[in-house]
Amino acid sequence: MQISSASGIPSARSRVHDASHDPALPRLIVNCLPLSGRERVSFEQAAPAIAQEFIGDPERRLDLLWRAHIPSDLLGRATAIIGNVEPGELAHAYRLEWLQTWSAGVDRYLVPGVLPPGTVVSTASGAYGQAVAEHMFAMMWALMKNLPAYAVSQHERRWHDAGRAFSPRGATALIVGTGDIGSHFALLAKAVGMNTVGIRRSAGTPADGIDVMHGIGDLDHELHGADVVALCVPSTSLTHHLLDARRLSLMKPSALLLNVGRGGAVDGDALVSALDRGSIRAAGLDVTEPEPLPDDSALWTMPNCLVTPHVAGGNHLPGTADAIISIALRNVRAYAAGEPLSNRQ
Amino acid sequence: MQISSASGIPSARSRVHDASHDPALPRLIVNCLPLSGRERVSFEQAAPAIAQEFIGDPERRLDLLWRAHIPSDLLGRATAIIGNVEPGELAHAYRLEWLQTWSAGVDRYLVPGVLPPGTVVSTASGAYGQAVAEHMFAMMWALMKNLPAYAVSQHERRWHDAGRAFSPRGATALIVGTGDIGSHFALLAKAVGMNTVGIRRSAGTPADGIDVMHGIGDLDHELHGADVVALCVPSTSLTHHLLDARRLSLMKPSALLLNVGRGGAVDGDALVSALDRGSIRAAGLDVTEPEPLPDDSALWTMPNCLVTPHVAGGNHLPGTADAIISIALRNVRAYAAGEPLSNRQ
Repeated sequence: MQISSASGIPSARSRVHDASHDPALPRLIVNCLPLSGRERVSFEQAAPAIAQEFIGDPERRLDLLWRAHIPSDLLGRATAIIGNVEPGELAHAYRLEWLQTWSAGVDRYLVPGVLPPGTVVSTASGAYGQAVAEHMFAMMWALMKNLPAYAVSQHERRWHDAGRAFSPRGATALIVGTGDIGSHFALLAKAVGMNTVGIRRSAGTPADGIDVMHGIGDLDHELHGADVVALCVPSTSLTHHLLDARRLSLMKPSALLLNVGRGGAVDGDALVSALDRGSIRAAGLDVTEPEPLPDDSALWTMPNCLVTPHVAGGNHLPGTADAIISIALRNVRAYAAGEPLSNRQ
Repeated sequence: MQISSASGIPSARSRVHDASHDPALPRLIVNCLPLSGRERVSFEQAAPAIAQEFIGDPERRLDLLWRAHIPSDLLGRATAIIGNVEPGELAHAYRLEWLQTWSAGVDRYLVPGVLPPGTVVSTASGAYGQAVAEHMFAMMWALMKNLPAYAVSQHERRWHDAGRAFSPRGATALIVGTGDIGSHFALLAKAVGMNTVGIRRSAGTPADGIDVMHGIGDLDHELHGADVVALCVPSTSLTHHLLDARRLSLMKPSALLLNVGRGGAVDGDALVSALDRGSIRAAGLDVTEPEPLPDDSALWTMPNCLVTPHVAGGNHLPGTADAIISIALRNVRAYAAGEPLSNRQ
């Protein structure tokens, strides 16, 4: 769909859409991805008629957590940016019509006023499933076998038995949010003998790895039976404090809570209280609210809580960077051809 | 086979064997297992003609690491003991003919002079495969995702990215020792997409979960290709320092070493040096040489080494205790019937 100037968007600003591009606007793609030489050639070949500036550092291939910094002259000329620029800097991207992030979440860019009106945002959603699900799976195993406690004992040179361990075999994982990450996690869980129950907005849509799917309305009921509750939900108004004090109290005292989606999905104070009382066994959090975790948070030192600093998706897996680059390349090709972009927000 | 007194064993001491028992000797089984009331009845029914004393504490069901302590009057009358008694105490078990341990390893009991000559020892080998393999698998995941480093950072209230993570998907696990534990580990590894190579004394014997089996003579060659080296070997003269400086140097710099068998299978000084130089990526050790790890060991504080205090098999899984009790019950039935014992050493 092409939005004409009649729609109220200033005619000086053309927008990229699912159809054709205004030929009057000379396009420039500023690409911040850490590309190899060969990949750069692929991008050039994908859009030979469009100017492309490559400013990514290949050395940062396994470190895509950084914010891209684009010199102001390029910012002012860019019609497309590939990379996670600091939102505040985008005020200078006057001509921007398309932002392709290397993150899966883009809430910071959707705040009104951050992007020129009508800018299309596409994400790297789908590139993180393996990395995030594996991190979550590793946290589950580590907590079941008390490994965080052993790591701390070791640090203090103590040879100390931390007590009972648990097995995933025959246990039930309740996976809340069954997109790319939740489905990957479910497949791993099933592979080691777990039963998998999914929760998504609409129970009618199946997902790989999920034995039984329920709608969000069944969450309370399903919390009762779960040995592991795996939260893989994005940050939306629907998911804010989804696990609050009341829902935490529905969990088994032996159950684990894992959160890799957004920190706000769990009420942090209620979680501290639940861990402290032992009304759940342990928690593994790659996301907190806020981030970084404040110095005075009780979660830092709770022996039954493992906190990792929002690194699960952090592109430290070569496969993640490859997948992000592949999504961006496909979209550059679409941008050049005036075809629909993938992963539009 | 019945060894008669003509074989040189004093006639006052009869021995239990695979056949019949000398009816002149009134038998007494001292059972130290943490049995439920129902299980105790099963043991009584399994050997109704034999006196049985039950001295186990059901409260210790998930804590079978302890040493059984048997009052000296019972020790002097016992013909059979079920439990891991401190070896030094067995000097008073004059009439002992059968020891059923709840451990899989029994090297401390096989030292000459510990047991009356001819005492049959049977182990709980086979009961630990799941627990030990799962602990090893959890250590592998934790190290691949840097979780021990995150646990220590958290303890110090630091929100710090530990860098690159690894995935087991498509990686190769070299499993040295493919008995119950190694085979269980191989099945878990395959379930998450790893390739599995086994090393055992005789390459001709397959094991569940192993894609390709090699004899011990191929160990050096196979070390080159392994992403994870998983040692699951018992303590024998053949396995002492099996991973020495030379063999550690054959491993990939990105490889992980896991040891859950016996600490002596790895040359500890050579391991410290390899971890320090980065000639291997990390190690996960549930067993060390000696145990506990001495205060001055460099392994305590190496950031790329996770040490757990020989707890992998530690019966903290309900399934492990169940399996040990089931092995012991089967052998009590055999002892009463004069039939061959399982798991004879």
